[in-house]
Amino acid sequence: MKTIKVIKIGGNIIDDAFSLKNFLLEFSNINGPKILVHGGGKLATKMAEKMQIEVQMIAGRRVTSLETLDVITMVYAGKINKNIVAELQSNGCNSIGFTGADGNTIIAKKRPVKEIDYGFAGDVISVNTSVLETVLNNQITPVFCAMTHNGNGQLLNTNADTIAAELAIEFAKKYPTELYYCFEKNGVLLDVNDTTSVVETLNKERYQELLKNKVIADGMLPKLNNCFEAIEKNVQKVSIGKSAMLFNKKLKYTSIQAL
Amino acid sequence: MKTIKVIKIGGNIIDDAFSLKNFLLEFSNINGPKILVHGGGKLATKMAEKMQIEVQMIAGRRVTSLETLDVITMVYAGKINKNIVAELQSNGCNSIGFTGADGNTIIAKKRPVKEIDYGFAGDVISVNTSVLETVLNNQITPVFCAMTHNGNGQLLNTNADTIAAELAIEFAKKYPTELYYCFEKNGVLLDVNDTTSVVETLNKERYQELLKNKVIADGMLPKLNNCFEAIEKNVQKVSIGKSAMLFNKKLKYTSIQAL
Repeated sequence: MKTIKVIKIGGNIIDDAFSLKNFLLEFSNINGPKILVHGGGKLATKMAEKMQIEVQMIAGRRVTSLETLDVITMVYAGKINKNIVAELQSNGCNSIGFTGADGNTIIAKKRPVKEIDYGFAGDVISVNTSVLETVLNNQITPVFCAMTHNGNGQLLNTNADTIAAELAIEFAKKYPTELYYCFEKNGVLLDVNDTTSVVETLNKERYQELLKNKVIADGMLPKLNNCFEAIEKNVQKVSIGKSAMLFNKKLKYTSIQAL
Repeated sequence: MKTIKVIKIGGNIIDDAFSLKNFLLEFSNINGPKILVHGGGKLATKMAEKMQIEVQMIAGRRVTSLETLDVITMVYAGKINKNIVAELQSNGCNSIGFTGADGNTIIAKKRPVKEIDYGFAGDVISVNTSVLETVLNNQITPVFCAMTHNGNGQLLNTNADTIAAELAIEFAKKYPTELYYCFEKNGVLLDVNDTTSVVETLNKERYQELLKNKVIADGMLPKLNNCFEAIEKNVQKVSIGKSAMLFNKKLKYTSIQAL
């Protein structure tokens, strides 16, 4: 198989119909095998409010009650995922929507309760690429939402950044693989108020240095940890930036380096 | 490919967690290639009520406003479909959830407005089995919810009985195919109050006769029309009855006959 691109998009694209449509058009034109992973954006929170379900957040992570899990299943795997698939089809990009339960692709375990009970949040245990390879070999693009299962019938809410990293890491064992995190910024910025202050290459040493000097916002830490895990586990290229980095060669972004 | 079984289940199974779990366990044990098609049951109506969306029904069919379409996408393709897939995985039955958009499997057109505007209801135009054949050849069971797309990015609400029939008809062009409609009764009954009064074989002549004598309830007509279309288009076996007909050889059910 040619180089597999795993591309994760977040709320800045998902929440805006125009941005999403534009992105999906450009995404459809990317040659070669590719996997799209999408977050949930603000829609799940809005839907929970509409249904008067209380959403509890601890340290930026949603606490997933059984009711919240239902909302997530409906919004992520239903509304967002299926509308993306339908839109990709209209662009001539054949695709199939996936949770980790579909094709038994991603097994997770319910996060153990320590100080905090995150409810039905799943930590990835294993990724099974065989069904995805068949799909990719048939020129079909898997579209993943942020859900996994435990293998015993329980769906679990799992961070989309983590799903993207785990997929890339597993594919990298067999094929050249690239991982792209698309978000609202041009990458890691030295000055959050200066969009041109992009750190164009970031290795672990520099990362530790920026962490010590508190240059990196807390919200970036889980994403960057996923990045470094991926690059250390043989993903060939790991990039963070605006989605336009995929299509516009002149746009600056942050490239994660192994050493 | 061996005989493909297309099995449709309705609200009586979907709406009851215990029945659903039991059915899925027995379904998982069916040998050979199989496709599950599920309706939505009462959950979409309940969800629409919770979200204070008005559901309009005309002649037993839901009028699909854009808001209702969202609810359906969330409930059918999200909550119901993905929980079925997760449950099948726990039974060792590898499966992938599908709408007609996934794999571009079922193209429909928005029902033309005559006297009644059914909104985003889709009438099937074409079924593409190539992705499904790949999936089935890999011992994976497609699980269809009652949704299609128009190929231009629009999801559409499509009757699950019709989806089951159209899938069976298309597969029957290439492979021996059987179609099973599982519902709350033992089949077509001569006396609605007598569960043993099953019409065990029903051909078109007898059907017309029963229609004339008003033996057949109105609600059964679309289902039976789908049955006769399927049997006339070379589906080898078309059966209506309780889901137990699949597993219990002694149970009576209605077998549709071509002549």
